[in-house]
Amino acid sequence: MTSTLPPVLAVLRPGGTAQLAPLEQPLLRADDAAATRGDGAFETMHVRPDGVWLLEDHLDRLAGSAAALSLNLPPREQLEAVVDTAVNGWCDRSTTEDGSTTDAARETEAGVKLVCSRGPEYSPELGSTAYALAFGVSERAIAQRRTGVALQSLSFGYPAAERARAPWLLGGAKTLSYAVNMATLRQAALGGFDDVLLMSSDGYVLEGSTSTVVWVVGDRLYTTPTETGILASITVAHLFDNAHRLGLSTHRQLVTRSELAGVDGVWLCGSVRGIVEATSLDGQKLPGSNLTPRLREVLGF
Amino acid sequence: MTSTLPPVLAVLRPGGTAQLAPLEQPLLRADDAAATRGDGAFETMHVRPDGVWLLEDHLDRLAGSAAALSLNLPPREQLEAVVDTAVNGWCDRSTTEDGSTTDAARETEAGVKLVCSRGPEYSPELGSTAYALAFGVSERAIAQRRTGVALQSLSFGYPAAERARAPWLLGGAKTLSYAVNMATLRQAALGGFDDVLLMSSDGYVLEGSTSTVVWVVGDRLYTTPTETGILASITVAHLFDNAHRLGLSTHRQLVTRSELAGVDGVWLCGSVRGIVEATSLDGQKLPGSNLTPRLREVLGF
Repeated sequence: MTSTLPPVLAVLRPGGTAQLAPLEQPLLRADDAAATRGDGAFETMHVRPDGVWLLEDHLDRLAGSAAALSLNLPPREQLEAVVDTAVNGWCDRSTTEDGSTTDAARETEAGVKLVCSRGPEYSPELGSTAYALAFGVSERAIAQRRTGVALQSLSFGYPAAERARAPWLLGGAKTLSYAVNMATLRQAALGGFDDVLLMSSDGYVLEGSTSTVVWVVGDRLYTTPTETGILASITVAHLFDNAHRLGLSTHRQLVTRSELAGVDGVWLCGSVRGIVEATSLDGQKLPGSNLTPRLREVLGF
Repeated sequence: MTSTLPPVLAVLRPGGTAQLAPLEQPLLRADDAAATRGDGAFETMHVRPDGVWLLEDHLDRLAGSAAALSLNLPPREQLEAVVDTAVNGWCDRSTTEDGSTTDAARETEAGVKLVCSRGPEYSPELGSTAYALAFGVSERAIAQRRTGVALQSLSFGYPAAERARAPWLLGGAKTLSYAVNMATLRQAALGGFDDVLLMSSDGYVLEGSTSTVVWVVGDRLYTTPTETGILASITVAHLFDNAHRLGLSTHRQLVTRSELAGVDGVWLCGSVRGIVEATSLDGQKLPGSNLTPRLREVLGF
């Protein structure tokens, strides 16, 4: 079952020590570039009994985002420490809340978000602001793994080839500037849709608002090429690395909306949501696939 | 002259009271949507002896940005109060720093930035986080009014017509998600350019990274149509309202990069920078215009 427990915050103090801190206590200065310009990078990861899932891959991707932003990150071992501190804080609380273990807390599925900004504009000597939030996965996200999601296709504005030509558009970087992604989700919710299929302005499928798209035709598993500027999904990379176990070959290919509506199965993938089948696209029912349980199993969801 | 005085922070407390607060003291929670998603809106305004320049126009535009984001703003009189508090704090300090007036402080030209976010994700009952930072205008910005700027044209990714078709792309909204705008400025600086002319993917001039473009052909003053998704510039609106005093007619029109290179004068406009002539575009010298002093005068810079 899920929990309404608030998240656990760990912060990286000057000098590089990771410490738990109360969420209620303000952390960022008013001039932090995270707050004033969405100028920083983040990663969201899944917490598993044996630790944070694919942590090193996420830290590699964070380093790539930071490079795109010319952002100096704290040393990697400090980032690992702040993530560990948040996750340990979550697990400790889950098992000993008010002095006794509770099944409700212990069974809460968790994720952890690592945030690194450029830091305070008027005190650049303070460097990057870095912190981690361990949080309970929402009931909605967990339920969607069973029920699937109804997708609405919405333009993300860019032609499919544009971001590869223009690296300053930060294609592939997971920045804190997510206002448009959030706006697409609100737009979809207005029409009763669960999630969004972001499209290029020239009609190709890009990704979900906070996820990556995969689809199947026969025994061929597809996703969108990263050259389109989509985020390079760690979950999809793991799925592709293990697809042979399901007898699937893997392919990266541009696809149009109407082509996607005719395939044998469509899913959204993310580090915390896992893999979620798309049941419809713009109100048109998509074919249900019997692959979903096996794809979930490969990913450990 | 300019000053290295740090900014003065005013915050809107729960209940709607505006108060000065130390910049060094953290203000935003780690889960504030401003920090984690660039999810909020802002305005930057010029501080003049008779008050904040065009404050009501900026508050109108902020309300438009908030509507695009489905963001509940604090009441307008509270936003006015937090801006006033920051500006009064700046002016008080400028004239009485260490108990005596100093010419250096008194002569510091100032701006004020108003930031409103969606607030803490895990305590939505707290509502929007709102604050204002009064700051000294940089020496660089002041010098550029005399020296002009060398521009580099860079793609902003979107076709010129795309954002009008897709309001969830937040065209015209001044959101906190400015990572791409900042990246374009870093890209330009790498090549020794001062500022950026953002282009649509289909080759039309959009705006500057943090400014709006105007140009002159004969006695005709032009800017880009807001239907392209650019920010509706308050400075340019004021300039257009008063252009008849200079014998100029006003026009909104799409223009290509090569067309712009052939006009009689090109400027960037902004609320704090004022109006700055572009001296070159991608290394090609632009014709100097003798209009600059009169345009500055109309805007009061």
